[in-house]
Amino acid sequence: MTRERWSRQTGSLDFLTLSEAYAQGWLTPSEVVEAIYERIAARGDDHVWTYLVPHDEALAAARKLEAGGSGSSPLWGIPFSIKDCNDVVGLPTTNGLKESLYIAETTGQVVTRLFEAGALLIGKTNMDQFGIGLVGMRTPYGACSSVFSDEHISGGSSSGSAVSVAAGLASFSIANDAAGSGRVPAGFNNIVGIKPTPGLVSNACVSGGGCVKTIETVSVFALTVEDGMAVMRGIAGYDRTYPFSKPEADDVPLHVAPVPLRFRFGIPAGEALRFFGDSEAERQFALAVERLIAMGGEPVPVDFAPFEETQRILYDGPWISERALSLDAVLAQYGDAIHPVTKRILESGGTYSAQDAFRAIHRIAELKCATRPVWDDISVLVVPTTPTIYRKSDILADPIALNARLGIYTNFVNLMGLCGVAVPNGLRSDGLPSGITFLAPGFAEARAAGFAAAFHKKTATGLGLHLNAYPDYPAEADGADRRG
Amino acid sequence: MTRERWSRQTGSLDFLTLSEAYAQGWLTPSEVVEAIYERIAARGDDHVWTYLVPHDEALAAARKLEAGGSGSSPLWGIPFSIKDCNDVVGLPTTNGLKESLYIAETTGQVVTRLFEAGALLIGKTNMDQFGIGLVGMRTPYGACSSVFSDEHISGGSSSGSAVSVAAGLASFSIANDAAGSGRVPAGFNNIVGIKPTPGLVSNACVSGGGCVKTIETVSVFALTVEDGMAVMRGIAGYDRTYPFSKPEADDVPLHVAPVPLRFRFGIPAGEALRFFGDSEAERQFALAVERLIAMGGEPVPVDFAPFEETQRILYDGPWISERALSLDAVLAQYGDAIHPVTKRILESGGTYSAQDAFRAIHRIAELKCATRPVWDDISVLVVPTTPTIYRKSDILADPIALNARLGIYTNFVNLMGLCGVAVPNGLRSDGLPSGITFLAPGFAEARAAGFAAAFHKKTATGLGLHLNAYPDYPAEADGADRRG
Repeated sequence: MTRERWSRQTGSLDFLTLSEAYAQGWLTPSEVVEAIYERIAARGDDHVWTYLVPHDEALAAARKLEAGGSGSSPLWGIPFSIKDCNDVVGLPTTNGLKESLYIAETTGQVVTRLFEAGALLIGKTNMDQFGIGLVGMRTPYGACSSVFSDEHISGGSSSGSAVSVAAGLASFSIANDAAGSGRVPAGFNNIVGIKPTPGLVSNACVSGGGCVKTIETVSVFALTVEDGMAVMRGIAGYDRTYPFSKPEADDVPLHVAPVPLRFRFGIPAGEALRFFGDSEAERQFALAVERLIAMGGEPVPVDFAPFEETQRILYDGPWISERALSLDAVLAQYGDAIHPVTKRILESGGTYSAQDAFRAIHRIAELKCATRPVWDDISVLVVPTTPTIYRKSDILADPIALNARLGIYTNFVNLMGLCGVAVPNGLRSDGLPSGITFLAPGFAEARAAGFAAAFHKKTATGLGLHLNAYPDYPAEADGADRRG
Repeated sequence: MTRERWSRQTGSLDFLTLSEAYAQGWLTPSEVVEAIYERIAARGDDHVWTYLVPHDEALAAARKLEAGGSGSSPLWGIPFSIKDCNDVVGLPTTNGLKESLYIAETTGQVVTRLFEAGALLIGKTNMDQFGIGLVGMRTPYGACSSVFSDEHISGGSSSGSAVSVAAGLASFSIANDAAGSGRVPAGFNNIVGIKPTPGLVSNACVSGGGCVKTIETVSVFALTVEDGMAVMRGIAGYDRTYPFSKPEADDVPLHVAPVPLRFRFGIPAGEALRFFGDSEAERQFALAVERLIAMGGEPVPVDFAPFEETQRILYDGPWISERALSLDAVLAQYGDAIHPVTKRILESGGTYSAQDAFRAIHRIAELKCATRPVWDDISVLVVPTTPTIYRKSDILADPIALNARLGIYTNFVNLMGLCGVAVPNGLRSDGLPSGITFLAPGFAEARAAGFAAAFHKKTATGLGLHLNAYPDYPAEADGADRRG
């Protein structure tokens, strides 16, 4: 890449392009900030931001960074966005409910580490209110769109985060994923979503710790798996001050592992692989399987019943009581200020007993146990990130049922303690993006990332909205180092 | 030890004595079996057994073992007992309710491994019904007594297991411990109780998986820590077929770690260290602290509030709903056949919601988090195993409140994911035994065992009922090997 070839309007913000440009001196963090604010202005009201760092402040931060000399961190001078519900000291948090705005006075180790590493914050991003939703429409800030179609949803709940990365407004974004919020919008915007194993990345930065604490995760959107894992290396690790952080988080390999010459990958068996009539989505997934076969893989149909049962337990079972634990009070306090669809969901909670909760906890443990042999037989489980994509008008007409459909390949993942990497699966014949997700056992992030990165390269569609070229990573940059 | 010095009536059944005798040829497993059945007959109706392996069958098993030649396992020819509620194929399980007797058709890896290692089963042992109780009196088989006093309780729920080891009827016993059942009876019988971290030892052998599945553990009684840890090395490890088994169980060090020359140990601070007026128990604990100081330790008073709050959550909170999940049906089916005290407890369950359950789960996580700094500052937390010991007549007069008092130093341990080793703390001036427990973080069994073993040697009271001499372990037998 050279200064001449890097477009101020559409040039890639992937880490390698930026860090090489910084090293070669033909681009500076403040020039990147300038370009980003021009791009933001050019996009107009895209509903991406709930709070945009004032232009002059962002520029000042970049200049301060430059004055300190080029940093050694891979995140030095890299612009990022962060989902509204994560606290950043001095900035407003609203959780997608403007009436509940507060200025954060604390944050967590994720945000602290990013600033220490020299990453540059651009702003906070739109989301489905309280993180409830996979559509990006349940928000008072206006719905984002897929960067490829104004008529189609961006996905959610981390809608603004995904669009900010896909549209070249940030190199990465910090989002959250309890039921798919960090994967679905990746699929709808031709970018990568890395959802770590629960406990690997501290949720201390999440407002109130998130509402589904036992399965909440901080996730990362980026243009490439390599970039996303560089962020993971920066933010992951045991947080002694956060109750659901796990001590083993400090020892988890977070490189992009090489893919073996021959491997076996799972796919949902039989009718569990479903697309709700979207034949183009079905075709795209079949192409993905063919591509994986061409990479040396052997597809293994996997009985999906335990995963589907787990998925049903999340929303048709006592886990909604965990969410209600924090949101019942919000419902009582804010009433009609709450988005009508979200309010309907919160009001239809149902009543579950403690016995129901323990029965569900036991059942999840049994289902995890039942799927252990699956993971002996395959390296990764490959699923469509979503079964289909919807128009905004579809969602408006049937906001709850269609939202639920979008989660059939994502809802079970955190309850089962798995990790996942969502990657682009090329553009459909109608020009819309599609995605697949590589799932792996808890703390096998490096493995999931390895397959996802290799597949993404093989897909060869180009990155994000502007379809910039996949960076030409030197072999050693594939991540032999485990920590940034 | 020699044949002449080893008494058929009272000779020690510790592993070193037996294995050296077997190696030197002056004792055989079948002679030990003969001695044990004589001892059992001599003790008369001590209420230890719910099922005794017929004498001729036990003898045949020992002879079969001998015919195969001396085995290499440290458990070869070692006699053991097992608590009633654990399934052994072909033997009756009653869970302390005779009416619910069934003949077990399956077992779990714990029992399978013991038989494979050449351990010899003597029988199944009495317990507080359904494992509910710390007294050993809530049983239709008649209450066991402390081996030192017919008037005093044996402790429970693993009453028969502890007495069988203390009285020299078995070298070790497989018991269970959710709230203290594997520690309290060790304290009342001058023996060792090893309670592993939840997930280290599979509960697959426990009838119905136990009723408080999320915190259930299989524990071990033995005469010495070295013996108990030899059993742990035999039975611990990941069980892929058991939902609550943890993969990391295969990598946990299970030797008896050396004690550093200088160390810091925690004790409950201020009024949390309480004995309900038992000044002799208070004096015994003070002696234990002095002994630890003489060993190079520095006592560190630890704020006990988080541990006490956890303890209250177990029985005054939604966790009783986990127990009710399996026992409500038993209550409905067996009604008045259930022990009256146990029935009262099961009927007074209270109703908790799923929100209560998740709130409690979050609170436990917060309390664990709050106590992390404690474990940075100390190597082990030392508590009295129980605050006092009661007469059977005391318990009959006030069966529930006094039982609850006995658990103040044990109830919180599994909920917090800790491990513990209960060891003798010498005999009181009234001739009754007393005990202390070394608690350590999850999977730090080797550390807790190291301190407990060193303390036990220093206490120098002798083993079990017969006060046999502490074996003279060669340095290498202290457990440099991690697996048996």
